[in-house]
Amino acid sequence: MAFRAKKLINNPDDVVTEFIEGLVETYPGLQYLDGFPQVKVVLRADVSSATNNKVAVISGGGSGHEPAHAGYVGEGMLTAAICGDVFASPPVDSILAGIRAVTGPMGCLLIVKNYTGDRLNFGLAAEQAKTEGYKVETVIVGDDCALPPPRGVAGRRGLAGTILVHKVAGAAAAAGLPLAKVAAEAKHASELVGTMGVGLNVCTLPGQEVTSDRLGPGKIELGLGIHGEAGAAVADLQPVDVVVSHVLNQILSTETNYVPITRGGRVILMVNGLGSTPLMELMIAAGKAVPRLQLEHGLAVDRVYTGTFMTSLDMAGFSISIMRADQPILERLDASTKAPSWPVGVDGVHPPTKIPIPVPPAPSSAKGDEPLSRPVQLSEQGQVLEVAIETAANAILNLKDTLNEWDSQVGDGDCGSTMYRGAKAILEDIKNYPLNDAAETVNEIGSTIGRTMGGTSGIIYTIMCKAAYTQLKRSSGSVVTPKQWAEALAASSAAVSKYGGASAGYRTLLDALLPALSVLQEKLNAGGDPITAFVLSSEAALTGAESTKKMQALAGRSTYISSDLLSTVPDPGAMAAASWYRAAALAVQEKYKS
Amino acid sequence: MAFRAKKLINNPDDVVTEFIEGLVETYPGLQYLDGFPQVKVVLRADVSSATNNKVAVISGGGSGHEPAHAGYVGEGMLTAAICGDVFASPPVDSILAGIRAVTGPMGCLLIVKNYTGDRLNFGLAAEQAKTEGYKVETVIVGDDCALPPPRGVAGRRGLAGTILVHKVAGAAAAAGLPLAKVAAEAKHASELVGTMGVGLNVCTLPGQEVTSDRLGPGKIELGLGIHGEAGAAVADLQPVDVVVSHVLNQILSTETNYVPITRGGRVILMVNGLGSTPLMELMIAAGKAVPRLQLEHGLAVDRVYTGTFMTSLDMAGFSISIMRADQPILERLDASTKAPSWPVGVDGVHPPTKIPIPVPPAPSSAKGDEPLSRPVQLSEQGQVLEVAIETAANAILNLKDTLNEWDSQVGDGDCGSTMYRGAKAILEDIKNYPLNDAAETVNEIGSTIGRTMGGTSGIIYTIMCKAAYTQLKRSSGSVVTPKQWAEALAASSAAVSKYGGASAGYRTLLDALLPALSVLQEKLNAGGDPITAFVLSSEAALTGAESTKKMQALAGRSTYISSDLLSTVPDPGAMAAASWYRAAALAVQEKYKS
Repeated sequence: MAFRAKKLINNPDDVVTEFIEGLVETYPGLQYLDGFPQVKVVLRADVSSATNNKVAVISGGGSGHEPAHAGYVGEGMLTAAICGDVFASPPVDSILAGIRAVTGPMGCLLIVKNYTGDRLNFGLAAEQAKTEGYKVETVIVGDDCALPPPRGVAGRRGLAGTILVHKVAGAAAAAGLPLAKVAAEAKHASELVGTMGVGLNVCTLPGQEVTSDRLGPGKIELGLGIHGEAGAAVADLQPVDVVVSHVLNQILSTETNYVPITRGGRVILMVNGLGSTPLMELMIAAGKAVPRLQLEHGLAVDRVYTGTFMTSLDMAGFSISIMRADQPILERLDASTKAPSWPVGVDGVHPPTKIPIPVPPAPSSAKGDEPLSRPVQLSEQGQVLEVAIETAANAILNLKDTLNEWDSQVGDGDCGSTMYRGAKAILEDIKNYPLNDAAETVNEIGSTIGRTMGGTSGIIYTIMCKAAYTQLKRSSGSVVTPKQWAEALAASSAAVSKYGGASAGYRTLLDALLPALSVLQEKLNAGGDPITAFVLSSEAALTGAESTKKMQALAGRSTYISSDLLSTVPDPGAMAAASWYRAAALAVQEKYKS
Repeated sequence: MAFRAKKLINNPDDVVTEFIEGLVETYPGLQYLDGFPQVKVVLRADVSSATNNKVAVISGGGSGHEPAHAGYVGEGMLTAAICGDVFASPPVDSILAGIRAVTGPMGCLLIVKNYTGDRLNFGLAAEQAKTEGYKVETVIVGDDCALPPPRGVAGRRGLAGTILVHKVAGAAAAAGLPLAKVAAEAKHASELVGTMGVGLNVCTLPGQEVTSDRLGPGKIELGLGIHGEAGAAVADLQPVDVVVSHVLNQILSTETNYVPITRGGRVILMVNGLGSTPLMELMIAAGKAVPRLQLEHGLAVDRVYTGTFMTSLDMAGFSISIMRADQPILERLDASTKAPSWPVGVDGVHPPTKIPIPVPPAPSSAKGDEPLSRPVQLSEQGQVLEVAIETAANAILNLKDTLNEWDSQVGDGDCGSTMYRGAKAILEDIKNYPLNDAAETVNEIGSTIGRTMGGTSGIIYTIMCKAAYTQLKRSSGSVVTPKQWAEALAASSAAVSKYGGASAGYRTLLDALLPALSVLQEKLNAGGDPITAFVLSSEAALTGAESTKKMQALAGRSTYISSDLLSTVPDPGAMAAASWYRAAALAVQEKYKS
């Protein structure tokens, strides 16, 4: 069934005028002539025929090639762009209005793509303008390299290479050169550039029905133009590297000899998207074209322009342009311009494209460069820490199946297994932990978890350990006080909340940790016994974790589970956190009792 | 039948690394860390951790959103971009490598889009970097306005508004602010911006098979993200004006109250293409959004950014972002940056968007402002001119059917009718021609033809007359000498050749005019009688026109006709030119005889 192509437009007849309205809203440096719908002319807001003391550079043609040509209007490039309807040459009156609006005593240069309609309409406008006393020169650009040398005049179409001619002419005009010299530079530039296009599909005109693509699946067209016209050949879709290679060979062919470029020379590369090709693909093509030009064609690549410069409505595909580079051309291309669609940041000398990955800083442990290891003799705190860690880890090992079962009801069923992996690894690595240094030990636990545990829980626990470590390192002294432990727990919880995005009541492990932290801080601030405070806070952790049964899930996978089902099981992550915390508290209490 | 999406790529696994290679070839200001394929980090070539005396601004996330984020790396914006695989968060080690590569003593700000994977990976990297002694702050951006206020944290995705946060942060850092202030500005900016997307199709991942689009023809999705996820609603495709209006209402909804923007306020507008939407359509959307914001929402629009800033591979559609504007924000957005994908030319005060069409200059005729008209008394030259014009025009009237018949064999069959229209109009207008002024009369003939004749021939004859007029005006004196007439014919032929692109032997009217010109110049230069020279040259015109039978067509429609067929008829355009020229010559000879 035929249906209209999906486009973000209003009336298909208004696309060009509405494009121009959006363009001038976007770019305050641009204006248009008040002559819609016939006269569609975009011009620099900062000059007029009365004030222009430079050569005006004017281009244009049918629309549907955006940003060409209106996007290249600006100081240092075009002075005005004359827009026709989609794929239709602008009428003479429109061109004349543009010439009259911006041309001062230095005259104007018309840059015209080689299509009969454009040549004649711009030509007549030029002759008419001359009768009105304007100085006018015209340069025709036909950079297409897709077809064998034409028998007549119609062969070589004007394609994306025209943009480079605009830039050269615009910079020459901005430099204050007289009309004859600006025209000569533009003509010279037009003779140095060749272009060839590759299409993946056919464009659809505004309001047009989608017809079956003349290209089948897996086929591409080589050597097409910018008006949906058929290409010179149809080929199988190949890796872009192969396509790029073919296109470069065609442009640089010594048989057609279209561009005067020979081995050992210097070139400029332009990779141009035809309208709906993502930048990623254009950059991939550019990245492949450069080494091919260098290695296969023996050419130095001085500049690379990659982007969407001259399109064919919504056509997918790209064109490649190669221009011979010399110093004067490079200076014109590098000259500054305010034209909004001319690419920025492309000039200058290339540094090495890649640099080595920086080496991680040496561990900032008190022991300097020595690797961290278990001390020969454990301090009292070291002994307590060891038993707390072991007991906590073992609690997790024992909970594996229960956690998995809960998680299979509210998540993806692997909470127990994930926690188990981390706990098991900690029990293996503990023999190397620098237990007399609590901060470094917490950091090492984080590293163990980061290396082994995996999953979202693995990252969250690693973040907790790293945050606690950073906090503990702020305290001086080899023994960590209960208050400092509480601060570390606060830092951990805050980091989880910040990066994980959850907070109290979200049915996550924070619903165990935050109640625990709250009780711990309260008791310590009240001057209570630290061991008792720890044990009481672990009871709060358990209560908090159990209370998740009553909570709707607000983060993680449980978000998608009905609250009826959720009410039968607690959050396994919260239960796991409460369990290891509780086990550690009881172990510390036991240790100090003994 | 399922088939692979057509993409200009090589191995689907390499798209991100090859994108980066093309990016750094294009922009010499960018480098990447030598850690492919795991570490995919793009950074400014002009700073390193050792030299960076400003806050480093780092962002990143899954790839497939190009130019985000790597295209925003550059002085004044991002210091580094960490690229994950397509739609996958980058691993912690990659983020850490980026932090280490560019962070100096001022520290670094991580700007993270609100996706769980990104939050956690960047979060862990941040905590790890802190343990290494780096100052690190993190700002999470969730600007999505498509869904009702989320029950939890997962709801508000980071979308194109993130780019504006990059810019604010980058400019604050470039201004030398300390980390806390840069982070505070970024956070503030993130709270001022809201975004909503509209999709016309679903994106396809590199290497993925094309599946049937979940959207039917004529359907669009409202409120989608940038990973191909389904939108909040499906709607019929409507004019973009209606779509824009809906999106603006949603973003500015006082119910969700996502962005703190109220009537009378000032805003920034960003219209962002999702990957394969042509600039024309984005500009149309922008052009419609501005007046809607102004008139319906009572907001002043301070800046408009229209382009392709944050994409979803090859998805068609756009997102709109609205940010509350205040002076400090505007200054950050306007601050200069070398980031290649940040739009240029968008700042500054808008002049009127349109200006009047310039009035054509007053006719430069010797008679000043007086309208041209037939003189009461014709000079001798005026009389000759009159009879020549009338005889030439009548010759064309008589040839109408013959020309049409020839043209029906080699063209579109209307040559006679077209020429007839012009000749008939000249015979009507001649009563107003200022016949004593030959130059002005030729110009008037051109105006008559331009107004009435139509078609390519109409333009070509108009160009001829305008070129002849310009040439004749160069000569002083009221009587035009035979040599000056020859110069005018030369200028006419040259103009036709230049703008039409044909030359001798192309089977066009030049094959009548050029031989005539050649004989005329030769005889006049040899000092021959001007009348005889004119008559002899008209014989050359006829011979030349007849000789087109032997020519292959090299311009115009006849290009497509076989040479066998062409050999039976002369080019009708050439025959027409020879005929009026011959008639004029004989009339002049007759006149001077009498």
